[in-house]
Amino acid sequence: MTKHIVIGFLGCGNVGSGVWRLLEGFGDAIEHRAGLRFHVKKVLVRDLTKKRDVAFPADVLTDNPDDVLTDPEIQIVAEFLGGEEPAYKYLLRALGAGKTVVTANKVAFALHWHELQKAAKASGAGLYYEAAVCGAIPIIHSLEESLQANFIDKIYGIVNGTTNYILTRMSKNGEDYATVLKDAQKLGLAEPDPAADVEGLDAAYKLSILASLAFHGRVPFEDVYVEGITRVGAEDIRCGQDLGYTLKLLAIAKRKGLDVETRVHPTFIRSDHPLANVSGSFNAVYLHGHACKEMMFLGRGAGDMPTASAIVSDLERAASVRKHLYPTFENAPNPRVTLKNNTDWQCPFYIRMLAKDEPGVLYRIAKCFADQGVSLAAVQQKGEQANGRVTLVIITHTASEKAVQRAVTSLDGEIATLKSIIRVEEE
Amino acid sequence: MTKHIVIGFLGCGNVGSGVWRLLEGFGDAIEHRAGLRFHVKKVLVRDLTKKRDVAFPADVLTDNPDDVLTDPEIQIVAEFLGGEEPAYKYLLRALGAGKTVVTANKVAFALHWHELQKAAKASGAGLYYEAAVCGAIPIIHSLEESLQANFIDKIYGIVNGTTNYILTRMSKNGEDYATVLKDAQKLGLAEPDPAADVEGLDAAYKLSILASLAFHGRVPFEDVYVEGITRVGAEDIRCGQDLGYTLKLLAIAKRKGLDVETRVHPTFIRSDHPLANVSGSFNAVYLHGHACKEMMFLGRGAGDMPTASAIVSDLERAASVRKHLYPTFENAPNPRVTLKNNTDWQCPFYIRMLAKDEPGVLYRIAKCFADQGVSLAAVQQKGEQANGRVTLVIITHTASEKAVQRAVTSLDGEIATLKSIIRVEEE
Repeated sequence: MTKHIVIGFLGCGNVGSGVWRLLEGFGDAIEHRAGLRFHVKKVLVRDLTKKRDVAFPADVLTDNPDDVLTDPEIQIVAEFLGGEEPAYKYLLRALGAGKTVVTANKVAFALHWHELQKAAKASGAGLYYEAAVCGAIPIIHSLEESLQANFIDKIYGIVNGTTNYILTRMSKNGEDYATVLKDAQKLGLAEPDPAADVEGLDAAYKLSILASLAFHGRVPFEDVYVEGITRVGAEDIRCGQDLGYTLKLLAIAKRKGLDVETRVHPTFIRSDHPLANVSGSFNAVYLHGHACKEMMFLGRGAGDMPTASAIVSDLERAASVRKHLYPTFENAPNPRVTLKNNTDWQCPFYIRMLAKDEPGVLYRIAKCFADQGVSLAAVQQKGEQANGRVTLVIITHTASEKAVQRAVTSLDGEIATLKSIIRVEEE
Repeated sequence: MTKHIVIGFLGCGNVGSGVWRLLEGFGDAIEHRAGLRFHVKKVLVRDLTKKRDVAFPADVLTDNPDDVLTDPEIQIVAEFLGGEEPAYKYLLRALGAGKTVVTANKVAFALHWHELQKAAKASGAGLYYEAAVCGAIPIIHSLEESLQANFIDKIYGIVNGTTNYILTRMSKNGEDYATVLKDAQKLGLAEPDPAADVEGLDAAYKLSILASLAFHGRVPFEDVYVEGITRVGAEDIRCGQDLGYTLKLLAIAKRKGLDVETRVHPTFIRSDHPLANVSGSFNAVYLHGHACKEMMFLGRGAGDMPTASAIVSDLERAASVRKHLYPTFENAPNPRVTLKNNTDWQCPFYIRMLAKDEPGVLYRIAKCFADQGVSLAAVQQKGEQANGRVTLVIITHTASEKAVQRAVTSLDGEIATLKSIIRVEEE
């Protein structure tokens, strides 16, 4: 016997059209396998007269949110508005009215997960957000429903396609940041105002969601350290490659005991690491759990159809569960994690400097690091010399962030000028 | 309110111990989040007196399968026996008695899926098999529950850890097959009788399951073309690397319209393809769907804890669904696929031969290919000469398998001797 589910869309755009098309194309298959049939009753749009690539029936489109939010027949609301408001306001209303929410909105979700989940629990509605993190990649489902018996202690994510596209081109062709960014904007791979992507904020939203889920604790967006790719130079990428490293904007979350660290910044990883071959606008999430061990999920993190694919999977999930489940944060049986030590990270560092080319210089540089307890794993002097200075690249062993900062601050400007510091993950 | 589920194990071993430990360690978390509590009532073992690393209560172990299969209290049977029999017989009995089955047994499952599913449907029991394919990687769940609204047309799998370990070492260190195999056996990464792995059968079992699910059609194990890695030489790996390729034992399933092809064989892929960095005993499944686009899932395809992780996820799924779902093969709304053209594949080919080093030889070789309509993409002559012969490596454009076979058969032994043919996937 088929269960009929009436749904409404908040926003439409290309993702909404994609969901509509998938429900048309796979409606029979979903009904046959899962006994579910979805009916889209209302679609909230801004402009009723706009030409669309899907021929919605005349009575489906509306520009009044109440038509979606107050219709008692509508059981599930799928949201593609994006951005914090008015999306958040609408989602709260939907949940308050007992309507299950399926959202692709990482901003509203990351900023207000707590309140949304509270509203969902209160009314017994479901809250589904697979499409909000890494598009088609089923990382939320996997964390919740496949890796639930794992103590996860590490997540490395390439979760922003724009920056990965830029870094890939810089790495493969030696192009500089500004040139590639302009090209990416022309190709529609970067926004006219690229800040949210290139400054790492988009990645930080996603990391806060992933880390919260994986570590069973609230990891607020504000607690993620963020450093974007705007200051990355082609020269560092090249120097890193010479040493066997590839540069990625990595979203890193680690847990040691109850201490959690979360940071987004340009990171060198080994060029034979599975993440190193994640190129162009692809996304990937690499993680380690005590039982599953290392895993990686790779796919399209954005785009209309990949996002629509995730939305449809959430619709089916929302309609088929015996009861809606919620991740356990407060009052969970899991001990509560803390972010209070999320500042002084331990990792190897790549350091590039321009140094005077004369006897004793290397000794004096090495002493600055030794004095701070930072041990060096490799030192490479580049052949070219300019103005009596040579390029010196240092890779440290695992060291404290603060100790390394103290070491480079103590460098005598007369003998060496710091050009860049990039964190390394050796794993 | 907690729902209590009584389960029984068929077989124990390290996977069973792992499941027991995960249920102990995560029992509270699963109860808190999902409202489920699992109780292991009976565990079938061969030897009651064997020392085990888990202290099972005295009344739990049994050497009588009936204690698991006929106990009306036991709702779910988890099977870790492996191999076709007696596992298949037990699974049929369990399903016949209305007990849901969770299995890690790819052999019994791949060979008897049809009958098992029939028995499950008849009694309304569930049939879960995530752990049977690629260990901890949630590829079954993802195909069924995350990518259900996708028309999937391609799967590339590295689904056998033993062969991937061997090929990785051959590729990285230039070692030969026999040496690495012996080492792998010492390390427990290959069986004393390695045939099932190195001949590609293990990969073919998994491919038949993946292709059946992805294409909504039955792809019997017997219809998978299989070629193992036993004849792979270090020289071909090296020649391929020079041309930018990495050798993998790839499980390939493609669908064009209703035509399905399934084959397992050593395959050259581009060294910057995400699958190329899947090294050691890792597994990975790369696929393409019309909505999700390209995706890859990487992880541990074997091992006690990775397999146990997948089993626990299936236990929770089996206990939480509103009703058990079954993949749709017969009478599905999806048009039925056919394997009748699963012989003459189209792909580029790598061909290595020893050729006479004299004028006109290349012309005569090229003519053999041209006569069969096979167009050449690259020809590389290696410097070294032996007995008046040089090594010649050819990469063809996409060509018909049969045409290439005809071309190499038509080579005049006087001028060139075929050393190896390896299929290439350019994607």
